[in-house]
Amino acid sequence: MCQLLGMNCNTPTDVTFSFAGFAQRGGRTDEHVDGWGIAFFEGLGLRHFVDHLPACESPVAELIRRYPIKSRNVIAHIRKATQGHVALENCHPFVRELWGRYWVFAHNGDLQDFQPRLHASFRPVGSTDSERAFCWLMQEMWKSHAGVPSVEELTLTLRELTPSIAKHGRFNFLLSNGDALWAHCSTNLWYVERKHPFTHAHLADEDLSIDFAQHTTRDDKVAVVVTAPLTVNEPWTQFAPGELKVFVDGQAV
Amino acid sequence: MCQLLGMNCNTPTDVTFSFAGFAQRGGRTDEHVDGWGIAFFEGLGLRHFVDHLPACESPVAELIRRYPIKSRNVIAHIRKATQGHVALENCHPFVRELWGRYWVFAHNGDLQDFQPRLHASFRPVGSTDSERAFCWLMQEMWKSHAGVPSVEELTLTLRELTPSIAKHGRFNFLLSNGDALWAHCSTNLWYVERKHPFTHAHLADEDLSIDFAQHTTRDDKVAVVVTAPLTVNEPWTQFAPGELKVFVDGQAV
Repeated sequence: MCQLLGMNCNTPTDVTFSFAGFAQRGGRTDEHVDGWGIAFFEGLGLRHFVDHLPACESPVAELIRRYPIKSRNVIAHIRKATQGHVALENCHPFVRELWGRYWVFAHNGDLQDFQPRLHASFRPVGSTDSERAFCWLMQEMWKSHAGVPSVEELTLTLRELTPSIAKHGRFNFLLSNGDALWAHCSTNLWYVERKHPFTHAHLADEDLSIDFAQHTTRDDKVAVVVTAPLTVNEPWTQFAPGELKVFVDGQAV
Repeated sequence: MCQLLGMNCNTPTDVTFSFAGFAQRGGRTDEHVDGWGIAFFEGLGLRHFVDHLPACESPVAELIRRYPIKSRNVIAHIRKATQGHVALENCHPFVRELWGRYWVFAHNGDLQDFQPRLHASFRPVGSTDSERAFCWLMQEMWKSHAGVPSVEELTLTLRELTPSIAKHGRFNFLLSNGDALWAHCSTNLWYVERKHPFTHAHLADEDLSIDFAQHTTRDDKVAVVVTAPLTVNEPWTQFAPGELKVFVDGQAV
Protein backbone atom coordinates (compact mmCIF):
# COMPACT_ATOMS: atom_id res chain seq x y z
CA MET A 1 0.00 0.00 0.00
CA CYS A 2 1.09 3.54 -0.70
CA GLN A 3 1.21 6.55 1.57
CA LEU A 4 -0.52 9.87 0.94
CA LEU A 5 0.26 13.33 2.29
CA GLY A 6 -1.80 16.42 1.55
CA MET A 7 -1.53 19.96 2.89
CA ASN A 8 -3.99 22.83 2.51
CA CYS A 9 -3.31 26.26 4.03
CA ASN A 10 -4.70 29.78 4.09
CA THR A 11 -1.22 31.25 3.51
CA PRO A 12 1.76 29.77 1.61
CA THR A 13 3.45 27.39 4.02
CA ASP A 14 6.45 25.12 3.64
CA VAL A 15 5.94 21.40 4.04
CA THR A 16 9.52 20.57 5.09
CA PHE A 17 8.62 19.36 8.62
CA SER A 18 5.81 17.04 7.53
CA PHE A 19 7.75 15.87 4.47
CA ALA A 20 10.79 15.01 6.63
CA GLY A 21 8.75 12.44 8.52
CA PHE A 22 6.76 11.32 5.50
CA ALA A 23 9.89 10.68 3.38
CA GLN A 24 11.19 8.27 6.04
CA ARG A 25 8.33 5.95 5.15
CA GLY A 26 9.84 5.61 1.68
CA GLY A 27 12.24 2.81 2.59
CA ARG A 28 13.31 3.56 6.16
CA THR A 29 10.41 3.30 8.62
CA ASP A 30 8.14 1.61 6.10
CA GLU A 31 8.39 -0.45 2.93
CA HIS A 32 7.27 2.06 0.28
CA VAL A 33 10.33 1.95 -1.95
CA ASP A 34 8.86 2.01 -5.46
CA GLY A 35 9.15 5.74 -6.12
CA TRP A 36 7.56 8.88 -4.80
CA GLY A 37 6.36 12.28 -5.90
CA ILE A 38 5.17 15.66 -4.70
CA ALA A 39 3.35 18.59 -6.30
CA PHE A 40 3.19 22.17 -5.00
CA PHE A 41 0.77 24.76 -6.31
CA GLU A 42 2.14 28.28 -6.54
CA GLY A 43 -0.73 30.48 -7.67
CA LEU A 44 -1.92 28.88 -10.90
CA GLY A 45 1.50 27.32 -11.46
CA LEU A 46 2.71 23.95 -10.29
CA ARG A 47 6.00 22.40 -9.23
CA HIS A 48 5.88 18.65 -9.80
CA PHE A 49 8.65 16.30 -8.70
CA VAL A 50 8.63 12.54 -9.24
CA ASP A 51 11.39 10.00 -8.74
CA HIS A 52 11.54 6.24 -9.09
CA LEU A 53 14.17 6.05 -6.31
CA PRO A 54 13.01 5.44 -2.71
CA ALA A 55 12.16 8.78 -1.08
CA CYS A 56 14.68 8.19 1.71
CA GLU A 57 17.54 7.96 -0.86
CA SER A 58 16.37 10.34 -3.59
CA PRO A 59 18.48 13.46 -4.30
CA VAL A 60 15.27 15.18 -5.37
CA ALA A 61 13.63 14.38 -2.01
CA GLU A 62 16.74 15.75 -0.33
CA LEU A 63 16.20 19.02 -2.26
CA ILE A 64 12.59 19.21 -1.04
CA ARG A 65 13.67 18.61 2.55
CA ARG A 66 16.17 21.51 2.33
CA TYR A 67 14.48 24.02 0.00
CA PRO A 68 11.42 25.46 1.75
CA ILE A 69 9.00 25.73 -1.16
CA LYS A 70 5.93 27.59 0.13
CA SER A 71 2.54 26.54 -1.13
CA ARG A 72 -1.12 26.64 -0.15
CA ASN A 73 -1.82 23.19 -1.63
CA VAL A 74 0.56 20.24 -1.65
CA ILE A 75 0.03 16.57 -2.53
CA ALA A 76 2.73 13.96 -1.95
CA HIS A 77 2.80 10.19 -2.44
CA ILE A 78 5.16 7.33 -1.68
CA ARG A 79 4.62 4.26 -3.77
CA LYS A 80 4.48 0.58 -2.97
CA ALA A 81 3.70 -0.92 -6.35
CA THR A 82 0.56 -3.07 -6.53
CA GLN A 83 -0.37 -2.55 -10.20
CA GLY A 84 2.06 -1.18 -12.80
CA HIS A 85 5.83 -1.73 -12.70
CA VAL A 86 8.37 0.58 -11.04
CA ALA A 87 8.79 3.39 -13.55
CA LEU A 88 8.65 7.16 -13.60
CA GLU A 89 5.36 7.23 -15.52
CA ASN A 90 3.72 5.22 -12.71
CA CYS A 91 4.80 7.60 -9.90
CA HIS A 92 2.07 9.69 -8.31
CA PRO A 93 0.93 12.43 -8.12
CA PHE A 94 -0.45 12.65 -11.67
CA VAL A 95 -1.18 15.98 -13.34
CA ARG A 96 -3.64 17.01 -16.05
CA GLU A 97 -4.92 20.36 -17.31
CA LEU A 98 -8.66 21.01 -17.49
CA TRP A 99 -10.44 24.35 -18.05
CA GLY A 100 -7.06 26.12 -17.98
CA ARG A 101 -6.18 24.82 -14.52
CA TYR A 102 -3.81 22.09 -13.36
CA TRP A 103 -5.32 19.19 -11.42
CA VAL A 104 -3.19 16.93 -9.23
CA PHE A 105 -4.20 13.47 -8.02
CA ALA A 106 -2.65 10.75 -5.85
CA HIS A 107 -4.17 7.43 -4.82
CA ASN A 108 -3.62 4.88 -2.10
CA GLY A 109 -5.30 1.56 -2.68
CA ASP A 110 -5.93 -1.11 -5.22
CA LEU A 111 -8.76 -1.28 -7.77
CA GLN A 112 -9.84 -4.61 -9.25
CA ASP A 113 -11.42 -4.98 -12.71
CA PHE A 114 -11.51 -1.24 -13.20
CA GLN A 115 -11.37 -0.64 -16.96
CA PRO A 116 -13.54 2.44 -17.50
CA ARG A 117 -14.44 3.69 -20.96
CA LEU A 118 -12.15 6.64 -21.61
CA HIS A 119 -13.72 8.44 -24.55
CA ALA A 120 -12.62 12.02 -23.86
CA SER A 121 -9.18 13.65 -23.89
CA PHE A 122 -7.70 12.09 -20.76
CA ARG A 123 -5.65 8.93 -21.23
CA PRO A 124 -3.24 7.22 -18.86
CA VAL A 125 0.45 7.37 -19.80
CA GLY A 126 1.48 4.65 -17.36
CA SER A 127 -0.11 1.34 -16.42
CA THR A 128 -1.61 1.93 -12.97
CA ASP A 129 -5.21 1.57 -11.86
CA SER A 130 -4.67 4.94 -10.13
CA GLU A 131 -3.99 6.93 -13.30
CA ARG A 132 -6.97 5.22 -14.98
CA ALA A 133 -9.17 6.35 -12.08
CA PHE A 134 -7.81 9.90 -12.35
CA CYS A 135 -8.44 10.04 -16.11
CA TRP A 136 -11.99 8.79 -15.62
CA LEU A 137 -12.63 11.36 -12.85
CA MET A 138 -11.30 14.16 -15.10
CA GLN A 139 -13.47 12.97 -17.99
CA GLU A 140 -16.60 12.88 -15.85
CA MET A 141 -15.81 16.25 -14.27
CA TRP A 142 -15.34 17.68 -17.79
CA LYS A 143 -18.74 16.26 -18.80
CA SER A 144 -20.43 17.63 -15.66
CA HIS A 145 -19.28 21.26 -15.83
CA ALA A 146 -18.65 23.81 -18.59
CA GLY A 147 -15.81 25.54 -16.74
CA VAL A 148 -14.08 25.50 -13.35
CA PRO A 149 -16.94 24.79 -10.90
CA SER A 150 -17.09 26.25 -7.40
CA VAL A 151 -15.61 24.16 -4.61
CA GLU A 152 -19.13 23.30 -3.43
CA GLU A 153 -20.31 22.22 -6.89
CA LEU A 154 -17.25 20.09 -7.54
CA THR A 155 -17.59 18.47 -4.12
CA LEU A 156 -21.13 17.40 -5.04
CA THR A 157 -19.90 16.02 -8.38
CA LEU A 158 -17.09 14.07 -6.70
CA ARG A 159 -19.56 12.65 -4.13
CA GLU A 160 -21.59 11.30 -7.07
CA LEU A 161 -18.58 9.94 -9.01
CA THR A 162 -16.46 8.41 -6.27
CA PRO A 163 -18.66 5.42 -5.30
CA SER A 164 -18.57 3.97 -8.81
CA ILE A 165 -14.77 3.72 -8.54
CA ALA A 166 -14.69 2.80 -4.84
CA LYS A 167 -16.79 -0.31 -5.46
CA HIS A 168 -13.75 -1.74 -7.30
CA GLY A 169 -11.55 -1.67 -4.19
CA ARG A 170 -9.63 0.60 -1.86
CA PHE A 171 -9.83 4.15 -3.13
CA ASN A 172 -8.20 6.63 -0.77
CA PHE A 173 -7.30 9.68 -2.83
CA LEU A 174 -6.23 13.32 -2.73
CA LEU A 175 -7.14 15.83 -5.46
CA SER A 176 -6.36 19.54 -5.78
CA ASN A 177 -6.65 22.32 -8.33
CA GLY A 178 -4.82 24.84 -6.14
CA ASP A 179 -8.05 26.25 -4.66
CA ALA A 180 -8.98 23.35 -2.42
CA LEU A 181 -7.88 19.88 -1.36
CA TRP A 182 -10.37 17.03 -1.74
CA ALA A 183 -9.70 13.87 0.24
CA HIS A 184 -11.62 10.60 -0.02
CA CYS A 185 -11.22 7.73 2.41
CA SER A 186 -12.19 4.17 1.77
CA THR A 187 -9.91 2.55 4.38
CA ASN A 188 -7.20 4.76 5.94
CA LEU A 189 -7.02 8.53 6.08
CA TRP A 190 -6.43 10.98 8.94
CA TYR A 191 -6.29 14.75 9.22
CA VAL A 192 -5.26 17.46 11.63
CA GLU A 193 -6.07 21.17 11.57
CA ARG A 194 -3.33 23.40 12.95
CA LYS A 195 -4.26 26.91 14.04
CA HIS A 196 -3.67 29.44 16.78
CA PRO A 197 -2.58 28.73 19.52
CA PHE A 198 0.10 26.63 17.79
CA THR A 199 2.03 24.08 19.83
CA HIS A 200 5.00 21.75 19.63
CA ALA A 201 4.71 18.72 17.39
CA HIS A 202 6.96 15.67 17.38
CA LEU A 203 7.33 13.43 14.31
CA ALA A 204 6.36 9.78 14.62
CA ASP A 205 8.91 8.62 12.02
CA GLU A 206 11.97 10.64 12.98
CA ASP A 207 13.33 12.23 16.14
CA LEU A 208 12.38 15.74 15.12
CA SER A 209 10.24 18.34 16.89
CA ILE A 210 9.00 21.73 15.83
CA ASP A 211 7.43 24.61 17.73
CA PHE A 212 4.88 25.81 15.19
CA ALA A 213 4.33 28.96 17.30
CA GLN A 214 7.77 30.18 16.20
CA HIS A 215 7.00 29.77 12.49
CA THR A 216 3.45 31.05 12.24
CA THR A 217 1.22 34.04 12.79
CA ARG A 218 -2.09 34.10 14.71
CA ASP A 219 -4.05 33.94 11.45
CA ASP A 220 -2.34 30.92 9.90
CA LYS A 221 -4.38 27.80 9.34
CA VAL A 222 -2.98 24.54 8.02
CA ALA A 223 -4.75 21.24 7.41
CA VAL A 224 -2.69 18.09 6.88
CA VAL A 225 -4.19 14.84 5.56
CA VAL A 226 -2.23 11.56 5.70
CA THR A 227 -2.55 7.79 5.49
CA ALA A 228 -1.28 7.49 9.07
CA PRO A 229 -0.68 10.29 11.62
CA LEU A 230 2.69 11.97 11.16
CA THR A 231 3.07 13.28 14.72
CA VAL A 232 2.62 11.63 18.11
CA ASN A 233 1.17 14.55 20.08
CA GLU A 234 -1.49 16.18 17.92
CA PRO A 235 -5.24 15.48 17.79
CA TRP A 236 -5.53 13.56 14.49
CA THR A 237 -9.05 12.73 13.32
CA GLN A 238 -9.74 9.56 11.36
CA PHE A 239 -11.96 9.73 8.27
CA ALA A 240 -14.96 7.43 8.15
CA PRO A 241 -14.99 4.83 5.36
CA GLY A 242 -16.62 6.38 2.29
CA GLU A 243 -16.12 9.92 3.56
CA LEU A 244 -15.15 12.72 1.15
CA LYS A 245 -13.92 15.91 2.79
CA VAL A 246 -12.81 19.17 1.23
CA PHE A 247 -10.30 21.55 2.78
CA VAL A 248 -10.19 25.26 1.95
CA ASP A 249 -7.94 27.88 3.56
CA GLY A 250 -6.52 25.38 6.01
CA GLN A 251 -9.70 23.88 7.40
CA ALA A 252 -12.34 21.30 6.60
CA VAL A 253 -15.43 22.85 5.02
CA MET B 1 14.05 37.02 -25.89
CA CYS B 2 14.28 33.62 -24.31
CA GLN B 3 16.82 30.85 -24.76
CA LEU B 4 16.08 27.30 -25.83
CA LEU B 5 18.06 24.10 -25.29
CA GLY B 6 17.06 20.72 -26.66
CA MET B 7 18.87 17.39 -26.57
CA ASN B 8 18.01 14.19 -28.45
CA CYS B 9 20.13 11.02 -28.06
CA ASN B 10 20.15 7.38 -29.05
CA THR B 11 21.05 6.34 -25.50
CA PRO B 12 20.14 8.00 -22.17
CA THR B 13 22.66 10.81 -21.71
CA ASP B 14 23.07 13.41 -18.98
CA VAL B 15 22.77 17.05 -19.93
CA THR B 16 24.90 18.44 -17.06
CA PHE B 17 27.67 19.84 -19.30
CA SER B 18 25.36 21.64 -21.73
CA PHE B 19 23.06 22.77 -18.92
CA ALA B 20 26.02 24.23 -16.96
CA GLY B 21 26.71 26.67 -19.79
CA PHE B 22 23.06 27.24 -20.62
CA ALA B 23 22.12 28.08 -17.00
CA GLN B 24 24.72 30.88 -16.98
CA ARG B 25 22.56 32.70 -19.50
CA GLY B 26 19.84 32.90 -16.86
CA GLY B 27 21.18 36.07 -15.23
CA ARG B 28 24.97 35.80 -15.48
CA THR B 29 26.18 35.89 -19.11
CA ASP B 30 22.81 37.03 -20.43
CA GLU B 31 19.69 38.82 -19.22
CA HIS B 32 17.18 35.96 -19.08
CA VAL B 33 16.19 36.28 -15.43
CA ASP B 34 12.42 35.71 -15.49
CA GLY B 35 12.40 32.02 -14.67
CA TRP B 36 13.49 28.82 -16.32
CA GLY B 37 12.49 25.21 -16.73
CA ILE B 38 13.64 21.81 -17.96
CA ALA B 39 11.90 18.55 -18.80
CA PHE B 40 13.52 15.11 -19.10
CA PHE B 41 11.79 12.12 -20.63
CA GLU B 42 12.53 8.80 -18.95
CA GLY B 43 10.76 6.15 -20.99
CA LEU B 44 7.14 7.28 -21.06
CA GLY B 45 7.62 9.23 -17.83
CA LEU B 46 8.70 12.81 -17.45
CA ARG B 47 10.63 14.87 -14.93
CA HIS B 48 9.57 18.49 -15.16
CA PHE B 49 11.25 21.30 -13.22
CA VAL B 50 10.25 24.94 -13.38
CA ASP B 51 11.34 27.86 -11.22
CA HIS B 52 10.57 31.57 -11.29
CA LEU B 53 14.04 32.34 -9.89
CA PRO B 54 16.89 33.11 -12.34
CA ALA B 55 18.53 29.86 -13.43
CA CYS B 56 21.94 31.02 -12.16
CA GLU B 57 20.52 31.39 -8.59
CA SER B 58 17.89 28.64 -8.45
CA PRO B 59 18.42 25.78 -5.96
CA VAL B 60 16.51 23.56 -8.39
CA ALA B 61 18.94 24.44 -11.22
CA GLU B 62 21.77 23.64 -8.83
CA LEU B 63 20.25 20.18 -8.33
CA ILE B 64 20.12 19.62 -12.10
CA ARG B 65 23.76 20.68 -12.47
CA ARG B 66 24.81 18.14 -9.81
CA TYR B 67 22.42 15.23 -10.28
CA PRO B 68 23.11 13.58 -13.64
CA ILE B 69 19.60 12.73 -14.80
CA LYS B 70 19.95 10.60 -17.95
CA SER B 71 17.45 11.06 -20.71
CA ARG B 72 17.06 10.56 -24.46
CA ASN B 73 15.01 13.75 -24.88
CA VAL B 74 15.43 16.97 -22.94
CA ILE B 75 13.94 20.44 -23.43
CA ALA B 76 15.08 23.44 -21.39
CA HIS B 77 14.17 27.11 -21.48
CA ILE B 78 15.32 30.32 -19.83
CA ARG B 79 12.78 33.08 -19.84
CA LYS B 80 12.97 36.78 -20.60
CA ALA B 81 9.36 37.84 -20.22
CA THR B 82 7.82 39.53 -23.26
CA GLN B 83 4.16 38.55 -22.73
CA GLY B 84 2.79 37.30 -19.40
CA HIS B 85 4.14 38.34 -15.99
CA VAL B 86 6.89 36.55 -14.04
CA ALA B 87 5.09 33.61 -12.47
CA LEU B 88 5.50 29.88 -12.26
CA GLU B 89 2.57 29.20 -14.59
CA ASN B 90 4.33 31.21 -17.33
CA CYS B 91 7.61 29.27 -17.14
CA HIS B 92 8.41 26.97 -20.06
CA PRO B 93 8.54 24.14 -20.94
CA PHE B 94 4.81 23.42 -20.89
CA VAL B 95 3.44 19.87 -20.64
CA ARG B 96 0.21 18.29 -21.82
CA GLU B 97 -0.98 14.71 -22.27
CA LEU B 98 -2.38 13.54 -25.61
CA TRP B 99 -3.09 9.96 -26.75
CA GLY B 100 -1.59 8.66 -23.48
CA ARG B 101 1.76 10.39 -24.05
CA TYR B 102 3.30 13.49 -22.53
CA TRP B 103 4.18 16.35 -24.90
CA VAL B 104 6.65 19.05 -23.95
CA PHE B 105 6.96 22.44 -25.63
CA ALA B 106 9.17 25.52 -25.25
CA HIS B 107 9.14 28.70 -27.34
CA ASN B 108 11.51 31.54 -28.04
CA GLY B 109 9.92 34.52 -29.70
CA ASP B 110 7.01 36.84 -29.57
CA LEU B 111 3.62 36.40 -31.28
CA GLN B 112 1.43 39.43 -32.02
CA ASP B 113 -2.37 39.27 -32.26
CA PHE B 114 -2.36 35.51 -31.83
CA GLN B 115 -5.72 34.60 -30.27
CA PRO B 116 -6.58 31.23 -31.80
CA ARG B 117 -9.94 29.57 -31.24
CA LEU B 118 -9.33 26.88 -28.61
CA HIS B 119 -12.39 24.65 -28.84
CA ALA B 120 -10.86 21.32 -27.75
CA SER B 121 -9.47 20.18 -24.41
CA PHE B 122 -6.25 22.19 -24.32
CA ARG B 123 -6.40 25.53 -22.52
CA PRO B 124 -3.57 27.76 -21.32
CA VAL B 125 -3.10 28.00 -17.55
CA GLY B 126 -0.83 31.05 -17.75
CA SER B 127 -0.97 34.20 -19.85
CA THR B 128 1.77 33.72 -22.46
CA ASP B 129 1.48 33.71 -26.25
CA SER B 130 3.72 30.61 -26.06
CA GLU B 131 1.29 28.45 -24.10
CA ARG B 132 -1.55 29.58 -26.39
CA ALA B 133 0.51 28.45 -29.38
CA PHE B 134 1.20 25.10 -27.71
CA CYS B 135 -2.47 24.54 -26.89
CA TRP B 136 -3.45 25.33 -30.49
CA LEU B 137 -0.78 22.97 -31.85
CA MET B 138 -2.01 20.19 -29.55
CA GLN B 139 -5.61 20.80 -30.60
CA GLU B 140 -4.75 20.66 -34.30
CA MET B 141 -2.55 17.58 -33.84
CA TRP B 142 -5.45 15.91 -31.98
CA LYS B 143 -7.79 16.78 -34.88
CA SER B 144 -5.30 15.48 -37.48
CA HIS B 145 -4.57 12.03 -36.01
CA ALA B 146 -6.57 9.36 -34.20
CA GLY B 147 -3.62 8.20 -32.09
CA VAL B 148 0.13 8.77 -31.73
CA PRO B 149 1.31 9.31 -35.33
CA SER B 150 4.68 8.17 -36.63
CA VAL B 151 7.50 10.69 -36.47
CA GLU B 152 7.23 11.18 -40.25
CA GLU B 153 3.47 11.75 -40.16
CA LEU B 154 3.68 14.22 -37.29
CA THR B 155 6.50 16.08 -39.01
CA LEU B 156 4.24 16.58 -42.04
CA THR B 157 1.42 17.81 -39.81
CA LEU B 158 3.71 20.25 -38.01
CA ARG B 159 5.02 21.58 -41.35
CA GLU B 160 1.40 22.36 -42.26
CA LEU B 161 0.49 23.91 -38.91
CA THR B 162 3.57 25.96 -38.09
CA PRO B 163 3.30 28.70 -40.76
CA SER B 164 -0.10 29.82 -39.52
CA ILE B 165 1.45 30.61 -36.12
CA ALA B 166 4.78 31.86 -37.49
CA LYS B 167 3.06 34.59 -39.47
CA HIS B 168 2.23 36.23 -36.12
CA GLY B 169 5.89 36.75 -35.20
CA ARG B 170 9.04 34.98 -34.09
CA PHE B 171 8.27 31.33 -33.47
CA ASN B 172 11.36 29.32 -32.62
CA PHE B 173 10.17 26.24 -30.74
CA LEU B 174 11.13 22.79 -29.45
CA LEU B 175 8.62 19.95 -29.09
CA SER B 176 9.08 16.37 -27.91
CA ASN B 177 6.98 13.36 -27.00
CA GLY B 178 9.99 11.31 -25.86
CA ASP B 179 10.41 9.62 -29.27
CA ALA B 180 11.77 12.57 -31.22
CA LEU B 181 12.67 16.24 -30.90
CA TRP B 182 11.06 18.68 -33.33
CA ALA B 183 12.72 22.07 -33.72
CA HIS B 184 11.37 25.01 -35.69
CA CYS B 185 13.38 28.12 -36.48
CA SER B 186 11.98 31.45 -37.45
CA THR B 187 14.98 33.59 -36.45
CA ASN B 188 17.67 31.91 -34.31
CA LEU B 189 18.38 28.23 -33.85
CA TRP B 190 21.55 26.14 -34.14
CA TYR B 191 22.35 22.45 -33.76
CA VAL B 192 25.31 20.15 -33.45
CA GLU B 193 25.46 16.36 -33.84
CA ARG B 194 28.00 14.67 -31.59
CA LYS B 195 29.15 11.17 -32.55
CA HIS B 196 32.26 9.00 -32.77
CA PRO B 197 35.06 10.09 -32.82
CA PHE B 198 34.15 12.35 -29.90
CA THR B 199 36.37 15.32 -29.08
CA HIS B 200 36.92 18.00 -26.46
CA ALA B 201 34.33 20.74 -26.19
CA HIS B 202 34.70 24.06 -24.38
CA LEU B 203 31.71 26.02 -23.11
CA ALA B 204 31.17 29.52 -24.46
CA ASP B 205 29.51 30.77 -21.23
CA GLU B 206 31.73 29.26 -18.56
CA ASP B 207 35.35 28.16 -18.31
CA LEU B 208 34.53 24.47 -18.50
CA SER B 209 35.76 21.79 -20.91
CA ILE B 210 34.79 18.19 -21.38
CA ASP B 211 36.38 15.32 -23.27
CA PHE B 212 33.29 13.56 -24.60
CA ALA B 213 35.46 10.56 -25.59
CA GLN B 214 35.81 9.73 -21.90
CA HIS B 215 32.06 9.69 -21.28
CA THR B 216 30.74 7.94 -24.38
CA THR B 217 30.87 4.73 -26.37
CA ARG B 218 31.47 4.41 -30.14
CA ASP B 219 27.76 4.01 -30.78
CA ASP B 220 26.52 7.08 -28.90
CA LYS B 221 24.86 9.84 -30.86
CA VAL B 222 23.70 13.13 -29.37
CA ALA B 223 22.08 16.10 -31.09
CA VAL B 224 21.90 19.44 -29.27
CA VAL B 225 19.71 22.32 -30.47
CA VAL B 226 20.10 25.83 -29.01
CA THR B 227 19.30 29.49 -29.56
CA ALA B 228 23.04 30.29 -29.74
CA PRO B 229 25.97 27.84 -29.86
CA LEU B 230 26.96 26.57 -26.41
CA THR B 231 30.56 25.64 -27.24
CA VAL B 232 33.33 27.52 -29.03
CA ASN B 233 35.02 24.63 -30.84
CA GLU B 234 32.29 22.47 -32.36
CA PRO B 235 30.75 22.66 -35.85
CA TRP B 236 27.35 24.23 -35.08
CA THR B 237 24.91 24.47 -38.00
CA GLN B 238 22.43 27.32 -38.20
CA PHE B 239 18.81 26.58 -39.12
CA ALA B 240 17.33 28.44 -42.06
CA PRO B 241 14.39 30.75 -41.31
CA GLY B 242 11.18 28.73 -41.56
CA GLU B 243 13.01 25.41 -41.23
CA LEU B 244 11.48 22.56 -39.20
CA LYS B 245 13.86 19.71 -38.37
CA VAL B 246 13.23 16.50 -36.48
CA PHE B 247 15.88 14.63 -34.50
CA VAL B 248 15.63 10.92 -33.76
CA ASP B 249 18.27 8.77 -32.04
CA GLY B 250 20.72 11.65 -31.84
CA GLN B 251 20.67 12.84 -35.43
CA ALA B 252 18.65 14.96 -37.81
CA VAL B 253 16.30 12.88 -39.97
